[in-house]
Amino acid sequence: MAEFKSFGSDNHSGVHPDVLKAIALANAGHQWAYGADSVTHSAIELFRSTFKAPVEVFFVFTGTASNTLAIRSTCRSFEAVVATTIAHINEDECGAPEYNTGCKILGFPAVNGKLLPSVIEGLRISPTDNHRVIPKLVSITQATELGTVYSPDEIRALTKAARARGLLVHMDGARLANAAAHLGCSLSELTTDVGLDVLSFGGTKNGLLCAEAVVFFRKDLAESFAYIRKQSMQLASKMRYLSSQYIPYLADELWLKNATAANAMAQYLRQKLLMIPGTSVPWETDANEVFAILPKEWSERLQKAGPAYPWDVQTGLIRFVCSFDTTREDVDRLFI
Amino acid sequence: MAEFKSFGSDNHSGVHPDVLKAIALANAGHQWAYGADSVTHSAIELFRSTFKAPVEVFFVFTGTASNTLAIRSTCRSFEAVVATTIAHINEDECGAPEYNTGCKILGFPAVNGKLLPSVIEGLRISPTDNHRVIPKLVSITQATELGTVYSPDEIRALTKAARARGLLVHMDGARLANAAAHLGCSLSELTTDVGLDVLSFGGTKNGLLCAEAVVFFRKDLAESFAYIRKQSMQLASKMRYLSSQYIPYLADELWLKNATAANAMAQYLRQKLLMIPGTSVPWETDANEVFAILPKEWSERLQKAGPAYPWDVQTGLIRFVCSFDTTREDVDRLFI
Amino acid sequence: MAEFKSFGSDNHSGVHPDVLKAIALANAGHQWAYGADSVTHSAIELFRSTFKAPVEVFFVFTGTASNTLAIRSTCRSFEAVVATTIAHINEDECGAPEYNTGCKILGFPAVNGKLLPSVIEGLRISPTDNHRVIPKLVSITQATELGTVYSPDEIRALTKAARARGLLVHMDGARLANAAAHLGCSLSELTTDVGLDVLSFGGTKNGLLCAEAVVFFRKDLAESFAYIRKQSMQLASKMRYLSSQYIPYLADELWLKNATAANAMAQYLRQKLLMIPGTSVPWETDANEVFAILPKEWSERLQKAGPAYPWDVQTGLIRFVCSFDTTREDVDRLFI
Amino acid sequence: MAEFKSFGSDNHSGVHPDVLKAIALANAGHQWAYGADSVTHSAIELFRSTFKAPVEVFFVFTGTASNTLAIRSTCRSFEAVVATTIAHINEDECGAPEYNTGCKILGFPAVNGKLLPSVIEGLRISPTDNHRVIPKLVSITQATELGTVYSPDEIRALTKAARARGLLVHMDGARLANAAAHLGCSLSELTTDVGLDVLSFGGTKNGLLCAEAVVFFRKDLAESFAYIRKQSMQLASKMRYLSSQYIPYLADELWLKNATAANAMAQYLRQKLLMIPGTSVPWETDANEVFAILPKEWSERLQKAGPAYPWDVQTGLIRFVCSFDTTREDVDRLFI
Repeated sequence: MAEFKSFGSDNHSGVHPDVLKAIALANAGHQWAYGADSVTHSAIELFRSTFKAPVEVFFVFTGTASNTLAIRSTCRSFEAVVATTIAHINEDECGAPEYNTGCKILGFPAVNGKLLPSVIEGLRISPTDNHRVIPKLVSITQATELGTVYSPDEIRALTKAARARGLLVHMDGARLANAAAHLGCSLSELTTDVGLDVLSFGGTKNGLLCAEAVVFFRKDLAESFAYIRKQSMQLASKMRYLSSQYIPYLADELWLKNATAANAMAQYLRQKLLMIPGTSVPWETDANEVFAILPKEWSERLQKAGPAYPWDVQTGLIRFVCSFDTTREDVDRLFI
Repeated sequence: MAEFKSFGSDNHSGVHPDVLKAIALANAGHQWAYGADSVTHSAIELFRSTFKAPVEVFFVFTGTASNTLAIRSTCRSFEAVVATTIAHINEDECGAPEYNTGCKILGFPAVNGKLLPSVIEGLRISPTDNHRVIPKLVSITQATELGTVYSPDEIRALTKAARARGLLVHMDGARLANAAAHLGCSLSELTTDVGLDVLSFGGTKNGLLCAEAVVFFRKDLAESFAYIRKQSMQLASKMRYLSSQYIPYLADELWLKNATAANAMAQYLRQKLLMIPGTSVPWETDANEVFAILPKEWSERLQKAGPAYPWDVQTGLIRFVCSFDTTREDVDRLFI
Repeated sequence: MAEFKSFGSDNHSGVHPDVLKAIALANAGHQWAYGADSVTHSAIELFRSTFKAPVEVFFVFTGTASNTLAIRSTCRSFEAVVATTIAHINEDECGAPEYNTGCKILGFPAVNGKLLPSVIEGLRISPTDNHRVIPKLVSITQATELGTVYSPDEIRALTKAARARGLLVHMDGARLANAAAHLGCSLSELTTDVGLDVLSFGGTKNGLLCAEAVVFFRKDLAESFAYIRKQSMQLASKMRYLSSQYIPYLADELWLKNATAANAMAQYLRQKLLMIPGTSVPWETDANEVFAILPKEWSERLQKAGPAYPWDVQTGLIRFVCSFDTTREDVDRLFI
Repeated sequence: MAEFKSFGSDNHSGVHPDVLKAIALANAGHQWAYGADSVTHSAIELFRSTFKAPVEVFFVFTGTASNTLAIRSTCRSFEAVVATTIAHINEDECGAPEYNTGCKILGFPAVNGKLLPSVIEGLRISPTDNHRVIPKLVSITQATELGTVYSPDEIRALTKAARARGLLVHMDGARLANAAAHLGCSLSELTTDVGLDVLSFGGTKNGLLCAEAVVFFRKDLAESFAYIRKQSMQLASKMRYLSSQYIPYLADELWLKNATAANAMAQYLRQKLLMIPGTSVPWETDANEVFAILPKEWSERLQKAGPAYPWDVQTGLIRFVCSFDTTREDVDRLFI
């Protein structure tokens, strides 16, 4: 595939050169293992300044792990997660949350990819009916699985509703960078400032090699995480090679540069798609994903030109994802 | 710590430059995710030629994951693992095997770090007594947790005994390279040829950045592994950065060069330690680990000179581990 | 509460005298434990003649266990259960299926309490997409959670659709007796004859003390059940006191007598309720449960007269359940 | 088997007539389900007066469940249980504790069936080493699996040692009644007074039909137990038939009468066995179990006369268990 750029997913792209440089830089002599090294300390400090809060940060290997362990550290097995039915945790992680935590995911319909505060307000929660699981954690995805973005006010409304019902709030931030780039917000404005409890901060989809961070905004929630991470097979021995990736990502705002570039190409692609007569784009393209229903002939042609993901075979909905290194030429090539 | 070399563990060392080069080389354009890329295909082919068998190979992130998922793919929850009490799976993985598989580990005393065939022969196995778990998988560690090495004949005796009782055999090969280097054997002579069913083939402790491989010698045992790996949060999206590490490792015999170097330094260190009057070295130094009980003064002094691991506080037993990049000067510096 | 009969649930009623007699009869001297006793052998033979098939039968303690272990014995952790959102396994078992099996339950809308074959036909099943769980088991409830009943043809349509997609079919038969009584069918006509794979055959809600049976129509599915039952803490040591309950239940058709009586009272209650102006009964009363939306004044009055279950606080829907020992006088008393 | 009494296990015997009477008495009209009934309230009050403490009590179905859920409610998955290798939880529950809690059991050698305080004192406990599970709960069996009995002082020494290391203490009291009968102690003297945290109080082996109780001496440890019990499939709907069994058991001291009778017969049997030349009885017969190594001819003869359990085929050690209804004639019959 290496000859052309893929629009199939943002994990088809590679690693930003600055990230490889940071890894090479971290490769100096011996270091303590398991996160006791100086690189990891520096990375954690960068998280604290970036999120403008004394967050607890733990690096893990995959987005699925990041989400699952966020659940495992906040919910007991008889407590449940409230999410949209299309949430990554509900549909795309092979049941990892249920298998690894025992917790049930309560799926609710998404509106434009988003969970509505009214869902939280309407939850049936009994503190004594032990026949039902107890809703405990609200999980939202930013940007959503449909490429739309929650505004800070929308998140605030959700965290407020959650707080009122005694629930915690988790954000699957696999594409948080793209959301922030779209909104022109800082990362802290979309997390710390809106009352989040725990964040899965993705990196791999935005130019990192392989690194995800679980970020706790409440120290008490992180108390057992070191054990949970080890027992769930997510503790890297040579941690510096995970943590170092976040150094240019945060210190040099690589997260923003990469996300801005990917988002811009998604806008450009959207415009090009809309020029095809008969094309429908069912919702906004806030981040780096474009969803479109195309005339059959174009659908086949575009998928041949570069891989894209057939989101819904029934309706013909196709997902195109732009990466940090997608160029105008890559988009144009789709239409030649 | 970066100024000096550690003897605390072989995961204190960094990444061999050839491995970083292979990663950089893999970073060319877009590739399919989740292992469908050409780099991963090449790496798997290298495993097949190296192990001289049509093995099924899956890359995961940690040694704990590699061992745990080998168990999960061969044992049902009511089947048990037979290992030494000092096995890494029994003592050093925070209960990950039990937590993630439900399986019990039956621990037996190690002799020179090794499991004896008589343990297998003496197992109480009933096919109908459902009050007891059913022994199903024998797990041995090569090189052992004590730095000793099983000979091919010793492994053959174990796999034969296991076969006779209807058991499968797993090898925790976190330091298999060091064992092979010590014995002058090829990797296949220590695995394929001696009747192994599944191998956790380590890399991280021998100069890789972060890559472990689960290698199945029986296709049927691997049937569900793709699902198990995903559900257990061990599926890398950008797989090429894991698999590429194994390319110089296998193609250029980097495994052998690194392991030979580390082993040699362990021998050199052992000789130096034995020159201290009153030192006792309780067993052979076959691989890259030296265990010694030292006079108190020397014990403190050596641990100050460079980190080493206090294996047993009671007896004063200290473990020194040499890495692929440990030099004579590094060893000498301990004694200055 | 003992002074009046409850309509809150059919587990508010007690034990049929014949069942207590059977238990007392089983209490003769010593017997082998764990199911190797003669009473259990007789009970199992009765199941085989009743279901007209060489079924494998295992007694457990609760309906939740019966359902959960049926799942555990047919699905691997990455395989999923297809059910209605209102299924007992989905809503009323405190997440026991997920916790004890790791499996995900895929919930689909119920129509009149029932799962439709079109749901099965429309399932997205990929044998290789390891990001999604694999649908494996269809689970239906007979009588449904809403008191409606699947006809044999309706079940046949479901098992046929399931077979066509490679799925197994489980029936939560907590109230199978009531369904059979309603339809005038034998138990085998509703299970063996319509292609069921595994049945949770309830007893406790229909006059037994505490006994549920997991019935396998395919021997191979039951292969590990003895171990699964023990490991899941459902193996009774003095098994004869569980199995003996099924002896009058099956041999004397107590299941039918009890269910017929309960169903008749539900019909009688339904007629009485419909005489209250403004009452709406949203669906058929096939079995022993009546659902009604009542005028506020009547709703309060009836719930005061004898406990009934407020099914949906929003809509005011109330559930009344009749038991094997509910009498016309008990129903009449509600309206005095 | 019904013609003769078994010495194979105390669950080969049946139900004491008083217990059946209590069950029949509880069978009066309708009652709230799931433990909200008046019988269960009374039973719980009896526990509080018997144990002379405001204990929290929960009824479950099996001893394995009672032990496993005691662990599940006191240990997180990365915390471990300290027990003897021969503990029922370690050897005889098909891995239920590990499967259902994820926790590791750390097995230590038993001395006369007992765990020694020195084991607790010598535990390696690190609050930060997340590679190892954290010992959290000490579990002892009273009477032990070998039929010996801990004195109150012995238990006190264990709870004191545990407290000093920050550990909780659980007692598997499957045969606590027999221990108390032997010692002439009240139940509270062996539990409340010696600093126990949680007790699995057995009944089934001592004349009940099927009832075990988890008794918490610390309210906070019981906080989530209602959910844990339901999710672990141990919540009886018609709870009164479990709880009622404990009413004669505690109110009329049936536990003591039954246990005293069984213990006396074990003493009588022991004397008879010791009269056989060449017999060796390797430890005290404190409770209702006699262990003996017999001359081959006698071994075969006695096992033919009435089932007994071949404890260790290698050494020829046989276990004889006396039940509440074992008579002198039953014992004598063995020797005819």
